[in-house]
Amino acid sequence: MLTGFVSFFMTENRPYILISNDDGYQAGGINFLIDTLKAVADLLVVAPDGPRSGFSTAITSAHPIHAVLIRKEQGLTVYACSGTPTDCVKLALNRYIERRPDLVIGGINHGDNSSVNAHYSGTMGVVQEAAMQGLPAVAFSLCDMSAKADFTPLRPYLIDITMKALMAGLPEFTCLNVNFPKCPKFEGVRICRMARSRWINEVKDLDNAGRCGDWYWLVGDCQELEPDAIDTDRWALSHGYVAVTPTTLDNTATRLMPMLKSLF
Amino acid sequence: MLTGFVSFFMTENRPYILISNDDGYQAGGINFLIDTLKAVADLLVVAPDGPRSGFSTAITSAHPIHAVLIRKEQGLTVYACSGTPTDCVKLALNRYIERRPDLVIGGINHGDNSSVNAHYSGTMGVVQEAAMQGLPAVAFSLCDMSAKADFTPLRPYLIDITMKALMAGLPEFTCLNVNFPKCPKFEGVRICRMARSRWINEVKDLDNAGRCGDWYWLVGDCQELEPDAIDTDRWALSHGYVAVTPTTLDNTATRLMPMLKSLF
Repeated sequence: MLTGFVSFFMTENRPYILISNDDGYQAGGINFLIDTLKAVADLLVVAPDGPRSGFSTAITSAHPIHAVLIRKEQGLTVYACSGTPTDCVKLALNRYIERRPDLVIGGINHGDNSSVNAHYSGTMGVVQEAAMQGLPAVAFSLCDMSAKADFTPLRPYLIDITMKALMAGLPEFTCLNVNFPKCPKFEGVRICRMARSRWINEVKDLDNAGRCGDWYWLVGDCQELEPDAIDTDRWALSHGYVAVTPTTLDNTATRLMPMLKSLF
Repeated sequence: MLTGFVSFFMTENRPYILISNDDGYQAGGINFLIDTLKAVADLLVVAPDGPRSGFSTAITSAHPIHAVLIRKEQGLTVYACSGTPTDCVKLALNRYIERRPDLVIGGINHGDNSSVNAHYSGTMGVVQEAAMQGLPAVAFSLCDMSAKADFTPLRPYLIDITMKALMAGLPEFTCLNVNFPKCPKFEGVRICRMARSRWINEVKDLDNAGRCGDWYWLVGDCQELEPDAIDTDRWALSHGYVAVTPTTLDNTATRLMPMLKSLF
Protein backbone atom coordinates (compact mmCIF):
# COMPACT_ATOMS: atom_id res chain seq x y z
CA MET A 1 0.00 0.00 0.00
CA LEU A 2 2.88 2.37 0.78
CA THR A 3 5.15 1.95 -2.23
CA GLY A 4 3.80 4.86 -4.25
CA PHE A 5 3.63 7.00 -1.15
CA VAL A 6 7.24 6.43 -0.17
CA SER A 7 8.54 7.17 -3.65
CA PHE A 8 6.35 10.28 -3.81
CA PHE A 9 7.74 11.50 -0.49
CA MET A 10 11.34 10.67 -1.32
CA THR A 11 11.53 13.51 -3.77
CA GLU A 12 13.46 16.58 -2.73
CA ASN A 13 10.32 18.63 -2.39
CA ARG A 14 8.42 17.01 0.41
CA PRO A 15 4.69 17.62 0.42
CA TYR A 16 3.57 20.56 2.52
CA ILE A 17 0.46 19.86 4.60
CA LEU A 18 -1.58 22.30 6.66
CA ILE A 19 -3.27 20.70 9.68
CA SER A 20 -5.95 22.00 12.02
CA ASN A 21 -8.73 20.55 14.17
CA ASP A 22 -11.50 21.52 16.57
CA ASP A 23 -10.24 19.76 19.70
CA GLY A 24 -7.24 22.06 20.12
CA TYR A 25 -3.54 21.70 19.41
CA GLN A 26 -2.94 19.65 22.53
CA ALA A 27 -5.50 16.94 21.70
CA GLY A 28 -4.45 13.34 21.18
CA GLY A 29 -5.91 13.05 17.71
CA ILE A 30 -4.02 15.91 16.09
CA ASN A 31 -0.78 14.84 17.73
CA PHE A 32 -1.20 11.26 16.52
CA LEU A 33 -1.70 12.67 13.03
CA ILE A 34 1.41 14.84 13.35
CA ASP A 35 3.46 11.88 14.57
CA THR A 36 2.21 9.78 11.65
CA LEU A 37 2.95 12.31 8.91
CA LYS A 38 5.96 14.32 10.08
CA ALA A 39 8.50 11.80 8.81
CA VAL A 40 7.24 12.12 5.27
CA ALA A 41 5.85 15.64 4.91
CA ASP A 42 6.50 19.19 6.05
CA LEU A 43 3.71 20.15 8.41
CA LEU A 44 2.24 23.49 9.39
CA VAL A 45 -0.20 23.16 12.28
CA VAL A 46 -2.45 26.11 13.13
CA ALA A 47 -5.01 24.82 15.58
CA PRO A 48 -7.29 26.27 18.26
CA ASP A 49 -5.75 26.90 21.68
CA GLY A 50 -8.50 24.83 23.30
CA PRO A 51 -11.62 22.80 22.46
CA ARG A 52 -13.89 24.15 19.70
CA SER A 53 -16.16 21.16 19.16
CA GLY A 54 -19.37 22.01 17.33
CA PHE A 55 -18.02 25.23 15.84
CA SER A 56 -18.99 24.25 12.27
CA THR A 57 -17.65 26.75 9.71
CA ALA A 58 -17.97 29.63 12.16
CA ILE A 59 -15.68 32.63 11.83
CA THR A 60 -14.79 35.32 14.35
CA SER A 61 -15.99 38.76 13.27
CA ALA A 62 -16.88 40.51 16.53
CA HIS A 63 -13.44 40.65 18.10
CA PRO A 64 -9.75 40.18 17.19
CA ILE A 65 -8.06 36.79 17.28
CA HIS A 66 -4.53 35.99 18.30
CA ALA A 67 -2.00 33.22 17.74
CA VAL A 68 1.13 32.05 19.51
CA LEU A 69 4.02 30.02 18.13
CA ILE A 70 4.19 26.80 20.14
CA ARG A 71 6.87 24.77 18.39
CA LYS A 72 9.21 25.16 15.43
CA GLU A 73 11.63 22.53 14.23
CA GLN A 74 12.74 21.14 10.88
CA GLY A 75 9.58 20.22 8.97
CA LEU A 76 7.10 21.04 11.75
CA THR A 77 5.68 24.37 12.91
CA VAL A 78 2.81 24.62 15.40
CA TYR A 79 0.70 27.68 16.22
CA ALA A 80 -2.14 27.88 18.75
CA CYS A 81 -4.93 30.29 17.83
CA SER A 82 -7.69 31.85 19.91
CA GLY A 83 -10.19 31.57 17.05
CA THR A 84 -12.39 28.95 15.45
CA PRO A 85 -11.13 26.04 13.32
CA THR A 86 -12.05 27.99 10.19
CA ASP A 87 -10.24 31.06 11.54
CA CYS A 88 -7.13 28.88 11.91
CA VAL A 89 -7.17 28.00 8.22
CA LYS A 90 -7.71 31.62 7.19
CA LEU A 91 -4.88 32.77 9.43
CA ALA A 92 -2.56 30.04 8.20
CA LEU A 93 -3.22 30.73 4.53
CA ASN A 94 -2.97 34.51 4.90
CA ARG A 95 -0.01 34.72 7.31
CA TYR A 96 1.81 31.52 8.22
CA ILE A 97 2.27 29.32 5.15
CA GLU A 98 5.71 29.12 3.57
CA ARG A 99 4.23 28.03 0.26
CA ARG A 100 0.82 26.93 -1.00
CA PRO A 101 -0.09 23.70 0.83
CA ASP A 102 -0.42 20.51 -1.20
CA LEU A 103 -3.15 19.33 1.16
CA VAL A 104 -5.14 20.48 4.19
CA ILE A 105 -6.14 17.98 6.87
CA GLY A 106 -8.68 18.43 9.66
CA GLY A 107 -8.46 16.17 12.69
CA ILE A 108 -8.09 13.56 13.82
CA ASN A 109 -11.34 14.45 15.54
CA HIS A 110 -12.31 12.80 18.79
CA GLY A 111 -15.86 11.85 17.83
CA ASP A 112 -18.18 10.92 14.98
CA ASN A 113 -18.56 13.44 12.14
CA SER A 114 -20.67 11.28 9.86
CA SER A 115 -24.21 12.07 8.69
CA VAL A 116 -25.64 15.39 9.93
CA ASN A 117 -22.83 15.73 12.47
CA ALA A 118 -20.78 17.02 9.56
CA HIS A 119 -22.85 20.21 9.64
CA TYR A 120 -21.89 20.99 13.22
CA SER A 121 -18.28 19.81 13.00
CA GLY A 122 -15.39 22.21 13.40
CA THR A 123 -13.18 19.55 11.81
CA MET A 124 -15.34 19.80 8.71
CA GLY A 125 -15.10 23.59 9.08
CA VAL A 126 -11.35 23.22 8.54
CA VAL A 127 -11.66 21.29 5.32
CA GLN A 128 -14.63 23.24 3.99
CA GLU A 129 -12.63 26.43 4.36
CA ALA A 130 -9.70 24.82 2.55
CA ALA A 131 -11.98 23.59 -0.24
CA MET A 132 -13.39 27.09 -0.67
CA GLN A 133 -9.80 28.23 -1.18
CA GLY A 134 -9.31 25.63 -3.92
CA LEU A 135 -7.14 23.28 -1.87
CA PRO A 136 -7.59 19.50 -1.60
CA ALA A 137 -8.71 18.73 1.93
CA VAL A 138 -9.49 15.68 4.06
CA ALA A 139 -11.18 15.48 7.47
CA PHE A 140 -10.36 12.50 9.69
CA SER A 141 -12.59 11.56 12.62
CA LEU A 142 -12.67 8.59 14.98
CA CYS A 143 -16.03 7.59 16.48
CA ASP A 144 -14.65 7.77 20.00
CA MET A 145 -15.01 10.98 21.98
CA SER A 146 -12.59 9.89 24.70
CA ALA A 147 -9.57 12.12 25.23
CA LYS A 148 -7.60 8.86 25.47
CA ALA A 149 -9.03 7.26 22.32
CA ASP A 150 -6.72 4.71 20.66
CA PHE A 151 -5.77 6.01 17.20
CA THR A 152 -3.26 3.24 16.44
CA PRO A 153 -5.50 1.25 14.06
CA LEU A 154 -5.91 4.33 11.90
CA ARG A 155 -2.24 4.77 11.04
CA PRO A 156 -2.00 2.87 7.70
CA TYR A 157 -5.29 4.38 6.54
CA LEU A 158 -4.17 7.90 7.39
CA ILE A 159 -1.08 7.42 5.24
CA ASP A 160 -2.92 5.70 2.41
CA ILE A 161 -5.72 8.28 2.20
CA THR A 162 -3.27 11.17 2.53
CA MET A 163 -1.19 9.73 -0.29
CA LYS A 164 -4.19 9.27 -2.54
CA ALA A 165 -5.47 12.78 -1.87
CA LEU A 166 -2.01 14.20 -2.63
CA MET A 167 -1.56 12.21 -5.81
CA ALA A 168 -5.10 12.30 -7.22
CA GLY A 169 -6.09 15.72 -5.93
CA LEU A 170 -9.69 16.77 -5.52
CA PRO A 171 -11.86 19.06 -7.65
CA GLU A 172 -12.32 22.60 -6.36
CA PHE A 173 -15.18 23.08 -3.91
CA THR A 174 -15.01 19.45 -2.74
CA CYS A 175 -13.40 17.69 0.20
CA LEU A 176 -13.43 14.30 1.90
CA ASN A 177 -15.11 13.47 5.21
CA VAL A 178 -13.41 10.30 6.52
CA ASN A 179 -14.82 8.60 9.61
CA PHE A 180 -13.34 5.58 11.40
CA PRO A 181 -15.43 3.24 13.52
CA LYS A 182 -14.25 2.52 17.05
CA CYS A 183 -12.76 -0.92 16.61
CA PRO A 184 -9.28 -2.46 16.66
CA LYS A 185 -9.33 -3.47 12.97
CA PHE A 186 -11.30 -2.20 9.99
CA GLU A 187 -13.11 -4.19 7.29
CA GLY A 188 -11.83 -1.85 4.58
CA VAL A 189 -12.86 1.46 3.01
CA ARG A 190 -16.29 2.32 1.64
CA ILE A 191 -17.17 5.38 -0.46
CA CYS A 192 -20.44 6.59 1.01
CA ARG A 193 -23.15 9.18 0.90
CA MET A 194 -24.20 11.18 3.97
CA ALA A 195 -26.92 9.31 5.87
CA ARG A 196 -30.00 11.16 7.02
CA SER A 197 -30.34 11.29 10.77
CA ARG A 198 -31.81 13.64 13.33
CA TRP A 199 -30.81 14.73 16.79
CA ILE A 200 -33.57 14.36 19.40
CA ASN A 201 -33.90 15.09 23.15
CA GLU A 202 -31.43 17.91 22.71
CA VAL A 203 -31.99 20.02 25.80
CA LYS A 204 -31.38 19.20 29.46
CA ASP A 205 -32.72 21.60 32.10
CA LEU A 206 -30.33 22.98 34.68
CA ASP A 207 -31.21 24.18 38.16
CA ASN A 208 -31.59 27.96 37.77
CA ALA A 209 -32.50 28.81 41.35
CA GLY A 210 -31.57 32.41 42.04
CA ARG A 211 -30.41 32.99 38.46
CA CYS A 212 -31.91 35.11 35.74
CA GLY A 213 -33.71 33.17 33.00
CA ASP A 214 -33.65 29.47 32.23
CA TRP A 215 -30.44 27.44 31.99
CA TYR A 216 -29.76 24.42 29.80
CA TRP A 217 -27.14 22.01 28.53
CA LEU A 218 -27.33 21.01 24.89
CA VAL A 219 -27.27 17.20 24.78
CA GLY A 220 -29.09 14.68 22.58
CA ASP A 221 -29.41 11.34 20.87
CA CYS A 222 -28.85 10.75 17.19
CA GLN A 223 -31.82 9.02 15.56
CA GLU A 224 -31.14 7.09 12.35
CA LEU A 225 -33.65 7.88 9.60
CA GLU A 226 -32.51 5.27 7.08
CA PRO A 227 -30.76 2.50 9.07
CA ASP A 228 -31.17 -0.11 6.31
CA ALA A 229 -29.62 1.87 3.45
CA ILE A 230 -26.29 0.22 2.68
CA ASP A 231 -24.70 3.12 0.78
CA THR A 232 -24.44 5.50 3.72
CA ASP A 233 -21.61 6.53 6.03
CA ARG A 234 -23.64 5.29 9.01
CA TRP A 235 -24.01 1.83 7.53
CA ALA A 236 -20.29 1.61 6.78
CA LEU A 237 -19.34 2.66 10.31
CA SER A 238 -21.77 0.29 11.98
CA HIS A 239 -20.33 -2.57 9.91
CA GLY A 240 -16.69 -1.89 10.73
CA TYR A 241 -15.72 0.00 7.56
CA VAL A 242 -13.87 3.28 7.17
CA ALA A 243 -16.44 5.69 5.70
CA VAL A 244 -15.17 8.10 3.04
CA THR A 245 -17.87 10.63 2.14
CA PRO A 246 -17.08 13.00 -0.73
CA THR A 247 -18.49 16.39 0.17
CA THR A 248 -19.35 19.39 -1.97
CA LEU A 249 -19.42 23.03 -0.97
CA ASP A 250 -22.04 23.72 -3.62
CA ASN A 251 -25.16 22.83 -1.69
CA THR A 252 -27.62 24.03 -4.33
CA ALA A 253 -30.67 21.75 -4.27
CA THR A 254 -30.83 21.46 -8.04
CA ARG A 255 -33.75 19.04 -7.95
CA LEU A 256 -35.95 21.66 -6.29
CA MET A 257 -35.52 24.18 -9.09
CA PRO A 258 -38.40 23.15 -11.38
CA MET A 259 -40.91 23.28 -8.52
CA LEU A 260 -39.61 26.66 -7.38
CA LYS A 261 -39.59 28.09 -10.90
CA SER A 262 -43.26 27.12 -11.21
CA LEU A 263 -44.07 29.07 -8.03
CA PHE A 264 -42.42 32.37 -8.97
CA MET B 1 -50.21 38.46 -5.13
CA LEU B 2 -51.72 38.30 -1.65
CA THR B 3 -55.14 36.79 -2.28
CA GLY B 4 -54.21 33.20 -1.54
CA PHE B 5 -52.17 34.30 1.41
CA VAL B 6 -54.99 36.23 3.03
CA SER B 7 -57.48 33.41 2.62
CA PHE B 8 -54.94 30.95 4.01
CA PHE B 9 -54.35 33.14 7.02
CA MET B 10 -58.03 33.85 7.64
CA THR B 11 -58.62 30.32 8.84
CA GLU B 12 -59.08 29.81 12.55
CA ASN B 13 -55.73 28.09 12.86
CA ARG B 14 -53.23 30.75 12.00
CA PRO B 15 -49.86 29.53 10.83
CA TYR B 16 -47.26 29.16 13.55
CA ILE B 17 -43.82 30.43 12.56
CA LEU B 18 -40.57 30.12 14.47
CA ILE B 19 -38.14 32.99 13.83
CA SER B 20 -34.48 33.39 14.70
CA ASN B 21 -31.47 35.24 13.31
CA ASP B 22 -27.78 35.89 13.89
CA ASP B 23 -27.89 39.64 14.50
CA GLY B 24 -29.73 39.30 17.80
CA TYR B 25 -33.36 39.83 18.87
CA GLN B 26 -32.96 43.62 18.95
CA ALA B 27 -31.76 43.96 15.33
CA GLY B 28 -33.74 45.92 12.78
CA GLY B 29 -34.11 43.03 10.34
CA ILE B 30 -35.78 40.58 12.68
CA ASN B 31 -38.10 43.26 14.03
CA PHE B 32 -39.13 44.31 10.52
CA LEU B 33 -39.91 40.65 9.82
CA ILE B 34 -41.94 40.38 13.04
CA ASP B 35 -43.88 43.54 12.20
CA THR B 36 -44.58 42.23 8.71
CA LEU B 37 -45.83 38.79 9.76
CA LYS B 38 -47.43 39.23 13.18
CA ALA B 39 -50.80 40.34 11.81
CA VAL B 40 -51.23 37.12 9.90
CA ALA B 41 -49.34 34.43 11.84
CA ASP B 42 -48.55 33.39 15.39
CA LEU B 43 -44.86 33.99 15.94
CA LEU B 44 -42.36 32.45 18.33
CA VAL B 45 -39.05 34.29 18.28
CA VAL B 46 -36.04 32.68 19.94
CA ALA B 47 -33.02 34.71 18.91
CA PRO B 48 -29.53 35.40 20.22
CA ASP B 49 -29.19 38.04 22.93
CA GLY B 50 -26.57 39.86 20.82
CA PRO B 51 -24.74 39.66 17.50
CA ARG B 52 -23.70 36.19 16.29
CA SER B 53 -22.68 36.98 12.71
CA GLY B 54 -20.53 34.30 11.11
CA PHE B 55 -21.60 31.57 13.54
CA SER B 56 -22.57 29.16 10.74
CA THR B 57 -24.29 26.03 12.13
CA ALA B 58 -22.22 26.16 15.33
CA ILE B 59 -23.64 24.70 18.52
CA THR B 60 -22.64 25.27 22.13
CA SER B 61 -21.28 22.16 23.77
CA ALA B 62 -18.63 23.42 26.20
CA HIS B 63 -20.86 25.38 28.56
CA PRO B 64 -24.56 25.83 29.42
CA ILE B 65 -26.79 28.29 27.58
CA HIS B 66 -29.59 30.38 29.00
CA ALA B 67 -32.66 32.18 27.73
CA VAL B 68 -34.87 34.98 29.02
CA LEU B 69 -38.46 35.79 28.10
CA ILE B 70 -38.47 39.28 26.59
CA ARG B 71 -42.05 39.76 25.41
CA LYS B 72 -45.27 37.79 25.43
CA GLU B 73 -48.53 38.97 23.93
CA GLN B 74 -51.33 37.47 21.86
CA GLY B 75 -49.67 35.78 18.87
CA LEU B 76 -46.09 36.86 19.65
CA THR B 77 -43.55 35.46 22.12
CA VAL B 78 -39.90 36.55 22.14
CA TYR B 79 -36.99 34.90 23.95
CA ALA B 80 -33.36 36.07 23.98
CA CYS B 81 -30.80 33.27 24.18
CA SER B 82 -27.12 33.30 25.10
CA GLY B 83 -26.29 30.66 22.49
CA THR B 84 -25.75 30.43 18.75
CA PRO B 85 -28.47 30.80 16.10
CA THR B 86 -28.61 27.00 15.79
CA ASP B 87 -28.84 26.68 19.59
CA CYS B 88 -31.87 29.00 19.45
CA VAL B 89 -33.69 26.64 17.08
CA LYS B 90 -32.82 23.59 19.18
CA LEU B 91 -33.99 25.33 22.35
CA ALA B 92 -37.20 26.53 20.71
CA LEU B 93 -38.10 23.12 19.31
CA ASN B 94 -37.25 21.26 22.51
CA ARG B 95 -38.68 23.71 25.09
CA TYR B 96 -40.62 26.72 23.83
CA ILE B 97 -42.89 25.75 20.94
CA GLU B 98 -46.61 25.48 21.62
CA ARG B 99 -47.06 23.19 18.62
CA ARG B 100 -44.94 22.04 15.68
CA PRO B 101 -44.11 25.14 13.60
CA ASP B 102 -45.50 25.35 10.07
CA LEU B 103 -42.37 27.22 8.99
CA VAL B 104 -39.03 28.42 10.36
CA ILE B 105 -37.57 31.73 9.19
CA GLY B 106 -34.02 33.01 9.66
CA GLY B 107 -33.39 36.74 9.38
CA ILE B 108 -33.83 39.22 8.02
CA ASN B 109 -30.04 39.26 8.04
CA HIS B 110 -28.15 42.52 7.79
CA GLY B 111 -25.75 41.47 5.03
CA ASP B 112 -25.24 39.27 1.99
CA ASN B 113 -25.58 35.51 2.50
CA SER B 114 -25.27 34.50 -1.14
CA SER B 115 -22.55 32.29 -2.62
CA VAL B 116 -19.98 30.96 -0.13
CA ASN B 117 -21.19 33.40 2.52
CA ALA B 118 -23.96 30.88 3.13
CA HIS B 119 -21.38 28.57 4.71
CA TYR B 120 -20.44 31.13 7.36
CA SER B 121 -23.91 32.50 7.94
CA GLY B 122 -25.66 32.08 11.27
CA THR B 123 -28.91 32.95 9.49
CA MET B 124 -28.36 29.89 7.32
CA GLY B 125 -27.50 28.00 10.53
CA VAL B 126 -31.07 28.69 11.67
CA VAL B 127 -32.71 27.27 8.58
CA GLN B 128 -30.26 24.39 8.17
CA GLU B 129 -31.06 23.27 11.70
CA ALA B 130 -34.78 23.52 10.95
CA ALA B 131 -34.37 21.55 7.73
CA MET B 132 -32.49 18.81 9.62
CA GLN B 133 -35.56 18.60 11.87
CA GLY B 134 -37.82 18.13 8.86
CA LEU B 135 -39.33 21.62 8.92
CA PRO B 136 -39.73 23.93 5.91
CA ALA B 137 -37.38 26.85 6.40
CA VAL B 138 -36.47 30.10 4.64
CA ALA B 139 -33.54 32.46 5.26
CA PHE B 140 -33.97 36.12 4.33
CA SER B 141 -30.96 38.41 3.93
CA LEU B 142 -30.55 41.96 2.65
CA CYS B 143 -27.23 42.90 1.06
CA ASP B 144 -26.81 45.85 3.39
CA MET B 145 -24.85 45.41 6.61
CA SER B 146 -25.99 48.73 8.07
CA ALA B 147 -27.84 48.55 11.38
CA LYS B 148 -30.22 51.11 9.85
CA ALA B 149 -30.75 49.28 6.55
CA ASP B 150 -34.09 50.03 4.86
CA PHE B 151 -36.12 46.82 4.73
CA THR B 152 -39.30 48.45 3.38
CA PRO B 153 -38.90 47.26 -0.25
CA LEU B 154 -38.78 43.66 0.98
CA ARG B 155 -42.21 43.62 2.57
CA PRO B 156 -44.37 42.23 -0.30
CA TYR B 157 -41.70 39.65 -1.12
CA LEU B 158 -41.44 38.50 2.49
CA ILE B 159 -45.16 37.87 2.53
CA ASP B 160 -45.26 36.24 -0.90
CA ILE B 161 -42.32 33.90 -0.25
CA THR B 162 -43.60 33.04 3.24
CA MET B 163 -46.99 32.21 1.79
CA LYS B 164 -45.52 30.02 -0.92
CA ALA B 165 -43.28 28.17 1.52
CA LEU B 166 -46.27 27.56 3.82
CA MET B 167 -48.55 26.39 1.06
CA ALA B 168 -46.11 24.41 -1.09
CA GLY B 169 -43.86 23.16 1.71
CA LEU B 170 -40.31 21.99 1.09
CA PRO B 171 -38.85 18.49 0.95
CA GLU B 172 -37.02 17.31 4.07
CA PHE B 173 -33.36 18.25 4.26
CA THR B 174 -33.85 21.31 2.05
CA CYS B 175 -34.34 25.00 2.73
CA LEU B 176 -34.36 28.31 0.86
CA ASN B 177 -31.64 30.95 0.94
CA VAL B 178 -33.27 34.23 -0.15
CA ASN B 179 -31.08 37.29 -0.72
CA PHE B 180 -32.29 40.78 -1.58
CA PRO B 181 -30.09 43.32 -3.37
CA LYS B 182 -29.71 46.73 -1.82
CA CYS B 183 -32.01 48.78 -4.01
CA PRO B 184 -35.36 50.54 -3.64
CA LYS B 185 -37.21 48.28 -6.10
CA PHE B 186 -36.51 44.76 -7.35
CA GLU B 187 -36.63 43.40 -10.90
CA GLY B 188 -38.39 40.23 -9.75
CA VAL B 189 -37.42 36.82 -8.35
CA ARG B 190 -34.86 34.45 -9.82
CA ILE B 191 -34.31 30.83 -8.79
CA CYS B 192 -30.53 30.46 -8.65
CA ARG B 193 -27.64 28.21 -7.89
CA MET B 194 -24.89 29.17 -5.45
CA ALA B 195 -22.13 31.09 -7.25
CA ARG B 196 -18.51 30.17 -6.68
CA SER B 197 -16.54 32.91 -5.03
CA ARG B 198 -13.58 33.16 -2.72
CA TRP B 199 -12.62 35.45 0.14
CA ILE B 200 -9.19 37.02 -0.18
CA ASN B 201 -7.05 39.42 1.90
CA GLU B 202 -8.70 38.01 4.99
CA VAL B 203 -6.35 39.02 7.77
CA LYS B 204 -5.44 42.48 9.06
CA ASP B 205 -2.54 42.79 11.51
CA LEU B 206 -3.11 44.54 14.81
CA ASP B 207 -0.52 46.31 16.92
CA ASN B 208 0.53 43.72 19.48
CA ALA B 209 3.12 45.78 21.34
CA GLY B 210 3.46 44.41 24.84
CA ARG B 211 1.02 41.58 24.21
CA CYS B 212 1.61 37.86 23.95
CA GLY B 213 1.47 36.47 20.42
CA ASP B 214 0.21 38.05 17.21
CA TRP B 215 -3.14 39.82 16.99
CA TYR B 216 -5.43 40.06 13.96
CA TRP B 217 -8.84 41.11 12.70
CA LEU B 218 -10.55 38.84 10.20
CA VAL B 219 -11.55 40.99 7.24
CA GLY B 220 -11.54 40.36 3.49
CA ASP B 221 -12.84 40.94 -0.02
CA CYS B 222 -15.10 38.54 -1.89
CA GLN B 223 -13.66 37.60 -5.28
CA GLU B 224 -16.13 36.43 -7.92
CA LEU B 225 -15.00 33.24 -9.68
CA GLU B 226 -17.74 33.10 -12.32
CA PRO B 227 -19.03 36.65 -12.78
CA ASP B 228 -20.53 35.96 -16.21
CA ALA B 229 -22.66 32.94 -15.29
CA ILE B 230 -26.27 34.11 -15.43
CA ASP B 231 -27.79 31.30 -13.35
CA THR B 232 -26.14 32.24 -10.04
CA ASP B 233 -27.31 34.09 -6.95
CA ARG B 234 -24.55 36.66 -7.49
CA TRP B 235 -25.69 37.46 -10.99
CA ALA B 236 -29.28 37.88 -9.83
CA LEU B 237 -28.28 40.23 -7.02
CA SER B 238 -25.99 42.33 -9.18
CA HIS B 239 -28.84 42.75 -11.68
CA GLY B 240 -31.46 43.85 -9.16
CA TYR B 241 -33.27 40.53 -8.71
CA VAL B 242 -34.26 38.75 -5.52
CA ALA B 243 -32.12 35.57 -5.46
CA VAL B 244 -33.84 32.40 -4.22
CA THR B 245 -31.31 29.58 -3.87
CA PRO B 246 -32.70 26.16 -2.97
CA THR B 247 -30.28 24.53 -0.57
CA THR B 248 -29.79 20.91 0.42
CA LEU B 249 -28.40 19.54 3.66
CA ASP B 250 -27.16 16.46 1.84
CA ASN B 251 -23.81 17.73 0.63
CA THR B 252 -22.57 14.40 -0.73
CA ALA B 253 -20.45 15.06 -3.83
CA THR B 254 -22.08 12.27 -5.81
CA ARG B 255 -20.11 13.07 -8.94
CA LEU B 256 -16.85 12.28 -7.15
CA MET B 257 -17.85 8.74 -6.27
CA PRO B 258 -16.64 6.89 -9.39
CA MET B 259 -13.16 8.45 -9.11
CA LEU B 260 -12.95 7.64 -5.41
CA LYS B 261 -14.20 4.10 -5.88
CA SER B 262 -11.42 3.53 -8.39
CA LEU B 263 -8.84 4.67 -5.83
CA PHE B 264 -9.88 2.40 -2.95
